[in-house]
Amino acid sequence: MSSRILIIGAGRSSSALIKYALDNSEALGWNITVADADPAAAAAKVNNHPRGTTAWLDVTKTNDRRELIGRSDIVVSLLPAHLHIEVAQDCIRLKKHLVTASYVSQELYRLGDEARNRELIFMGEMGLDPGIDHMTAMQRINAIRAAGGEVTAFRSFTGGLISPESNDNPWGYKFTWNPRNVVLAGQGTAQYLEEGKLKYLPYYRLFGNTWDVEVEGIGKFEAYANRDSLLYRQQYGLEDIPTILRGTLRYPGFCAAWNALVRIGMTDGDFPILDSENITYHELMEALAPSGPGSVKDRIAGMLKLEPKGEVMKRLTWLGLFRKKRIKLKGATPALILENLLLDKWQLQPDDKDLIVMQHQIDYRLDGKEKRDVSNLVMKGENAQDTAMARLVGLPLGIFVRLMSQGQIHATGVHIPTMREVYEPVLEEMKAYGMEFTHHTVDL
Amino acid sequence: MSSRILIIGAGRSSSALIKYALDNSEALGWNITVADADPAAAAAKVNNHPRGTTAWLDVTKTNDRRELIGRSDIVVSLLPAHLHIEVAQDCIRLKKHLVTASYVSQELYRLGDEARNRELIFMGEMGLDPGIDHMTAMQRINAIRAAGGEVTAFRSFTGGLISPESNDNPWGYKFTWNPRNVVLAGQGTAQYLEEGKLKYLPYYRLFGNTWDVEVEGIGKFEAYANRDSLLYRQQYGLEDIPTILRGTLRYPGFCAAWNALVRIGMTDGDFPILDSENITYHELMEALAPSGPGSVKDRIAGMLKLEPKGEVMKRLTWLGLFRKKRIKLKGATPALILENLLLDKWQLQPDDKDLIVMQHQIDYRLDGKEKRDVSNLVMKGENAQDTAMARLVGLPLGIFVRLMSQGQIHATGVHIPTMREVYEPVLEEMKAYGMEFTHHTVDL
Repeated sequence: MSSRILIIGAGRSSSALIKYALDNSEALGWNITVADADPAAAAAKVNNHPRGTTAWLDVTKTNDRRELIGRSDIVVSLLPAHLHIEVAQDCIRLKKHLVTASYVSQELYRLGDEARNRELIFMGEMGLDPGIDHMTAMQRINAIRAAGGEVTAFRSFTGGLISPESNDNPWGYKFTWNPRNVVLAGQGTAQYLEEGKLKYLPYYRLFGNTWDVEVEGIGKFEAYANRDSLLYRQQYGLEDIPTILRGTLRYPGFCAAWNALVRIGMTDGDFPILDSENITYHELMEALAPSGPGSVKDRIAGMLKLEPKGEVMKRLTWLGLFRKKRIKLKGATPALILENLLLDKWQLQPDDKDLIVMQHQIDYRLDGKEKRDVSNLVMKGENAQDTAMARLVGLPLGIFVRLMSQGQIHATGVHIPTMREVYEPVLEEMKAYGMEFTHHTVDL
Repeated sequence: MSSRILIIGAGRSSSALIKYALDNSEALGWNITVADADPAAAAAKVNNHPRGTTAWLDVTKTNDRRELIGRSDIVVSLLPAHLHIEVAQDCIRLKKHLVTASYVSQELYRLGDEARNRELIFMGEMGLDPGIDHMTAMQRINAIRAAGGEVTAFRSFTGGLISPESNDNPWGYKFTWNPRNVVLAGQGTAQYLEEGKLKYLPYYRLFGNTWDVEVEGIGKFEAYANRDSLLYRQQYGLEDIPTILRGTLRYPGFCAAWNALVRIGMTDGDFPILDSENITYHELMEALAPSGPGSVKDRIAGMLKLEPKGEVMKRLTWLGLFRKKRIKLKGATPALILENLLLDKWQLQPDDKDLIVMQHQIDYRLDGKEKRDVSNLVMKGENAQDTAMARLVGLPLGIFVRLMSQGQIHATGVHIPTMREVYEPVLEEMKAYGMEFTHHTVDL
């Protein structure tokens, strides 16, 4: 058996996938083509591997795209999410399977019948979050149900963090992924269900409302609500449970300090700051602080009802927000100024190890008793190039392609990885790559 | 002399303009065409006047639009702002003057040279706000400068309010204009200059930061900062002054109560509320309140650090936010639910009179003394149909068209009404329509 695998996109998130595909290509009989608008990037990753080739591709060029897709059996698209739909339409036309790590759009779901009629599978959300979160949650939910338990609450927390030995700044955070998303990520409302009641948190209260999460053997974290927790109720089969919460993990103290940035206005992207290239961070703080006597730092602390020498103010000061140093960014909003400051302050150093932590807390009733299934996923990266984040995004894609090429996937249509035939083998193989996923039960 | 006037749009904001044009048509030798996608609306306003005709116009139909514009001398566009640009391009091509009450877009400003080359005037922002605010401010600024004064601070406040005799609800507010804009209006950051320092207010602090404004003989008001106060510095010739603030007026107590709505999350438009058609307002408040013991009202008051029986909570209660009444709106966000509630609660009754209030506070230095020029504009409406708002938007358009058709306007290009040849005659004639504009000087 042989398979022709087309990987579109040789950017940052492709390394672990391409390595997995090349490493397994001989055994699996794969021929791999890596296509990118930057042929050098593709060539660097393929590195003259005998079973790898590269292709130059401008994805907006329909004919070039179709020709490449036509010559493959399975397509993995690592393109930005909005570009998937055209690739998907080509895959329908040319009868090819498609795999992505992006959120499945409504537009993509609408291709479900056409994919099914052609006996194709379009698998989306096949990375870390979304991806591993679905797989691990479904494994635990199905195990509880198989034992006769009735799920009553689902809480799930994920964090892309820095490993304790590389954690050397007061925020306990460095960028292991797209920095822009980190600044804008919380830029929105969150909603979740708590004991049958909908909870709706506007942005400026989001980081002021946190949960303590302890991961045994790793440490204590705090979580804030992650956008719309109600999104996967149906896919998880949890339509009727009264408590459902998805959250994002940070080291303790992060949320209070980020909340201060939100309340000060530093995450605001509405107007550029007047003369932003010439003013200093100190002058920017003056623009955001109430007028009055005392230092700008004291006035900010007063406005936020914080101790002037407390932990939050220390974190803000460490960022350099009160320094009389020029911002040197033209026409920049506070959000852009903050992003630039954080790019410098939160930069991952070459030897830094990242840390992915995920915990599901699934409450259930069994034989009249209330219990909680706590499952923890932990994975540590090697360095700034070989991160746990990159592996947890790329390896599930690679493993899923292996399962498909070996005929182990029977589903057709548009899916996310909630079915057993996907999550069992993927999670099993991930162990070999250093992913630890354990669980235990607590009486409530 | 005769002029053919084309008025595009016979909606809500056109009444005062059309009436002005018809009333003056005989004396001025005007023939007026009112064009609208709804010919009945146009016919109702023209009312068989011998100098008026109506035309059916779908503005997206280029040929129809051009034919109508081609048969006119002056075009007044009351279309939604984003549709002006195509009309403006037709006016360039067909060599016609153009007048609007909308903000002038960058795209429209770019037609300035072409308009000037053809000796055309494109006058925008010729309504109330923007419009009358520019004209009255420039009249006072130029008067101060003519007397040798040097302007040091400019503060300008405008409110579309309800007249005291019709003010019968605890908010002191009813809808005299587009309700959607009222809910979304404050949905943003504001910036202004205070004693040489930029001040930048994120949304959730906007209504917590107010100024007291007293208008002699009318009463006391409070103002919140209106978006970008720095917009007109250049056009007003105020590039170098250290204090510049534009604000929106409300009756006292409004801003604290609106601030509570913002902080609760009622102006949030991010997600639809789960099952919004079936839940009650009380349940919605429960979704937005912190969990805990006590009534939802007490928990909301606690979260906002407000007296449970104080003025703000009374205003929230009056809106019906704590009633166990079904919302009955499908897939609605909190902002949409609030808008619908306010549409009912703040509805202008047929005999209600509206009130427009504007105050400019212009500080200046003259002969070594610091003084303040305070000018007040007040206008009261007749009833819910004949509002001060509609007159102050429509009449300046009509008067400006008169000035043009009588050859009194010499400017060409794209403008806003900051020049004397416009504001002097417009403001003078507005007096005959009940607009009072007075000023006095205060020593600082």
